[in-house]
Amino acid sequence: MSVSQLLKQRVRYLPYLDKVKTADELIPLFKNGMYIGWSGFTGVGAPKAVPEALSDHVEKNNLQGKLRFNLFVGASAGPEEFRWADNDMIIKRAPHQVGKPISKAINDGRMLFFDKHLSMFPQDLTYGFYSRDRSDGKILDYSIVEATAIKEDGSIVPGPAVGGSPEFLSVSDKIIIEVNTKTPSFEGIHDIDMPVLPPYRKPYPYCKVDEKSGVNSIPVDPKRVVAIVETHKTDKVPPNTPSDDMSRAIAGYLVEFFRNEVKHGRLPENLLPLQSGIGNVANAVIEGLADANFKHLNVWTEVLQDSFLDLFQNGTLDYATATSIRLTEDGFNRVFNDWDNFMTKMCLRSQVVSNNPEIIRRLGVIAMNTPVEVDIYAHANSTNVNGSRMLNGLGGSADFLRNAKLSIMHAPSARPTKTDPTGISTIVPMASHVDQTEHDLDILVTDQGLADLRGLAPRERAREIIDNCAHPDYRDLLHDYLQRSEHYAAKHSCLHEPHMLKNALKFHINLSEKGTMKVDSWDPVD
Amino acid sequence: MSVSQLLKQRVRYLPYLDKVKTADELIPLFKNGMYIGWSGFTGVGAPKAVPEALSDHVEKNNLQGKLRFNLFVGASAGPEEFRWADNDMIIKRAPHQVGKPISKAINDGRMLFFDKHLSMFPQDLTYGFYSRDRSDGKILDYSIVEATAIKEDGSIVPGPAVGGSPEFLSVSDKIIIEVNTKTPSFEGIHDIDMPVLPPYRKPYPYCKVDEKSGVNSIPVDPKRVVAIVETHKTDKVPPNTPSDDMSRAIAGYLVEFFRNEVKHGRLPENLLPLQSGIGNVANAVIEGLADANFKHLNVWTEVLQDSFLDLFQNGTLDYATATSIRLTEDGFNRVFNDWDNFMTKMCLRSQVVSNNPEIIRRLGVIAMNTPVEVDIYAHANSTNVNGSRMLNGLGGSADFLRNAKLSIMHAPSARPTKTDPTGISTIVPMASHVDQTEHDLDILVTDQGLADLRGLAPRERAREIIDNCAHPDYRDLLHDYLQRSEHYAAKHSCLHEPHMLKNALKFHINLSEKGTMKVDSWDPVD
Repeated sequence: MSVSQLLKQRVRYLPYLDKVKTADELIPLFKNGMYIGWSGFTGVGAPKAVPEALSDHVEKNNLQGKLRFNLFVGASAGPEEFRWADNDMIIKRAPHQVGKPISKAINDGRMLFFDKHLSMFPQDLTYGFYSRDRSDGKILDYSIVEATAIKEDGSIVPGPAVGGSPEFLSVSDKIIIEVNTKTPSFEGIHDIDMPVLPPYRKPYPYCKVDEKSGVNSIPVDPKRVVAIVETHKTDKVPPNTPSDDMSRAIAGYLVEFFRNEVKHGRLPENLLPLQSGIGNVANAVIEGLADANFKHLNVWTEVLQDSFLDLFQNGTLDYATATSIRLTEDGFNRVFNDWDNFMTKMCLRSQVVSNNPEIIRRLGVIAMNTPVEVDIYAHANSTNVNGSRMLNGLGGSADFLRNAKLSIMHAPSARPTKTDPTGISTIVPMASHVDQTEHDLDILVTDQGLADLRGLAPRERAREIIDNCAHPDYRDLLHDYLQRSEHYAAKHSCLHEPHMLKNALKFHINLSEKGTMKVDSWDPVD
Repeated sequence: MSVSQLLKQRVRYLPYLDKVKTADELIPLFKNGMYIGWSGFTGVGAPKAVPEALSDHVEKNNLQGKLRFNLFVGASAGPEEFRWADNDMIIKRAPHQVGKPISKAINDGRMLFFDKHLSMFPQDLTYGFYSRDRSDGKILDYSIVEATAIKEDGSIVPGPAVGGSPEFLSVSDKIIIEVNTKTPSFEGIHDIDMPVLPPYRKPYPYCKVDEKSGVNSIPVDPKRVVAIVETHKTDKVPPNTPSDDMSRAIAGYLVEFFRNEVKHGRLPENLLPLQSGIGNVANAVIEGLADANFKHLNVWTEVLQDSFLDLFQNGTLDYATATSIRLTEDGFNRVFNDWDNFMTKMCLRSQVVSNNPEIIRRLGVIAMNTPVEVDIYAHANSTNVNGSRMLNGLGGSADFLRNAKLSIMHAPSARPTKTDPTGISTIVPMASHVDQTEHDLDILVTDQGLADLRGLAPRERAREIIDNCAHPDYRDLLHDYLQRSEHYAAKHSCLHEPHMLKNALKFHINLSEKGTMKVDSWDPVD
């Protein structure tokens, strides 16, 4: 087929130009049951044209539930995945997803899903762990990867996400590259470490957030590249949730905490590299740091958002590195209009590196994430509402919270149900699902206050959390649970972490049955 | 006081000889509420004379509950700690303990305790996290450390345990050294990395188990050393539990699994560095590997036991490194009688290094540990019986299981109660406490069989675990729980990880009330 001038500018390895295809031409390559890897992370940098063509094909030919794939993406892909979920095109998905149609398919039992630490997922894939039942020995049949340029050696310059692409490409039987000619080239912003398996691994050399030692594109074997598809669709990221009173209250407590840590010599004046999640609390914290006049901050995180751009411009932030840069259209324009400047301040790495325990612990990262719920002894649920209903998956929360110097979780103290404006308490007697253990949490913050859990025994933690973080509507209930549990435990010599197992999940059962966690009474125990 | 010839041979820094004291002379130094660090790890290498003198002092003067300390040890100390627990001499203890008197004091509520990942505990201590409420700014008042020699620069050559001593000594206001002249000197077996705090940390360079880059003694500031005490008491380690049919069955399934991994190219022929815990299952696995003719194995672990000595001698094992060498008297004699040979095959490091995620992940360690219980979705409880009663603490289990290439847990499928020989099922509907999450477990083995959980979604995991690992007495009950949970979850659109919260902890409640986990029926849910 004819090759556009735009595509020729982006593809500097000429033999690929003989492989240019339309997405529709590739449909016959895809067979039911195949293992597919996609580029993308946090909704940006995912392939677009081929997934859409496959959805069209399935809808046109009534192949729903008949043409299905095992789908692996570094984290969440773009809205193209929604149609795959709606059309029952996914047998199994890992390790993280975002989007109502996808979680609906999982919770309706139409799609299998497993979540895994984002730093480990790509390496476990390369080990062959997820394809161990295949008789043909293949790990991935196809990787479909978005590029913003192709270098002279055929290597891929990704767009705004590196994610798991280096690992996917290293173990993929065949490769399809979608070259996005609408998005400007991101060449120069990446630093890629290709996977090395034990026993041959070496230390990652990074001792500061701005160090680079890898290559700036992903090497591939050109023989395995079966098609180049030109695409024109940019990533669409919804506007960031603005901060509100609740999130600003949380940010206020955290800023005060950081100031106190600096004062006591437990943090340097420019803190330590920050990791911060997505959402309005995260944004409020970032704003709060700027307002509090912290300077020369650094960021070692998973995903960069618009809020960081302001920090660069007002001198708060020196350098930021992540595996994905998830910006609004406005945000991307700001970056591209000042590309040479931002290039010296940002770097995108593979998720194996951005989330690696080795580097997070070495740098002494300050990690901040939002849980679903936290129990009085500091076990946190990041994934499953009422123990069973999957939201998005674990993501990188445990990579960071386990290894950070300061492991911080922040959340509103209560959330509304249909019938009760404070029907869901973030603080519960026992978490209905545990993703982060009591051994992984240093600081908990809600709009009510901050609990400093460092060095506390479980019963001390419980009082610190209830008094400082629980919503007032639940404080008496939680204290009552704790005291009754201690009374029971004193009789049975189990006072380390007292529970009444008969009542431990009663907040959640009450929520299911009555639409609020406000229980009327506790079942008697003796 | 007069200095023995034996002590003069061990102490090569002469100014220390002016500081030789008896343990009794040091009693006035210790004040109620002080923060104390001890050397020791897994019951060896802990101080002996000073703790005993303090116990004598408390008993003689009826100071029980009046002379109390915050006590920090790398992991478990020796039996000297039992008397401290019995005499209410411990306010708070971290991060791991072994011994009935200690767990009794914790579970009776007389002693506060918190467990923390063994790789993180010493670093968090040096950050000042555990002493943040002190007005004097001190972290530790005293460290009491056992040495087997003192070098010319005043640095300490530890005995069979390094543990947290490097970190304790680096932040201790005053230091007391117990020089054990009965135990032979361990000089030359240690490789010590002293703590460096962020933002100044560098990579640990170790890419193989036998690499060394540290110093072979622990540097201290001689001005802070207030006393040298000579001791003559050796460590007493009870004989290892021999393997039995149950543990040999587990070992058999594991050996078969390893062979299959080698066959499919997912492990090299000499496997990858092994981590193995304490106990008869761990010993049976080690024996099984030798019997199965594996060669040139390597070990990167926390503690070495007698079972490894045989492996060296029959050529199965090339090199082993840990933070402690916990041998019986017979085992220590074997080592000392062949010291020059063993010195080339073993190395002891600090627990921050032996348990470091950085190195465990880089090397691709195979980690094997024993849980209290595991639930059908693969959450494991390593610490709290029935959710509340502390056994020993987390130890290094999560350091290894989170970061290993293969995360393996092994346990008997059932354990007896007073009234039911299979009254406790290791496989439960929901773990009553979670230390290792579903995201951290690859392989589960019991005497019934092996469950390979890699890449499985939760409902797939549940069937794999129940069918392969649960005791036959519980298999139908667990399947019934799973099916009813799925029935409920299908109606409520929460089929990712189905639970009936009303019944999730019923195994445990039944055990408390009726002495067996065999429940008669499930409470109705809708």
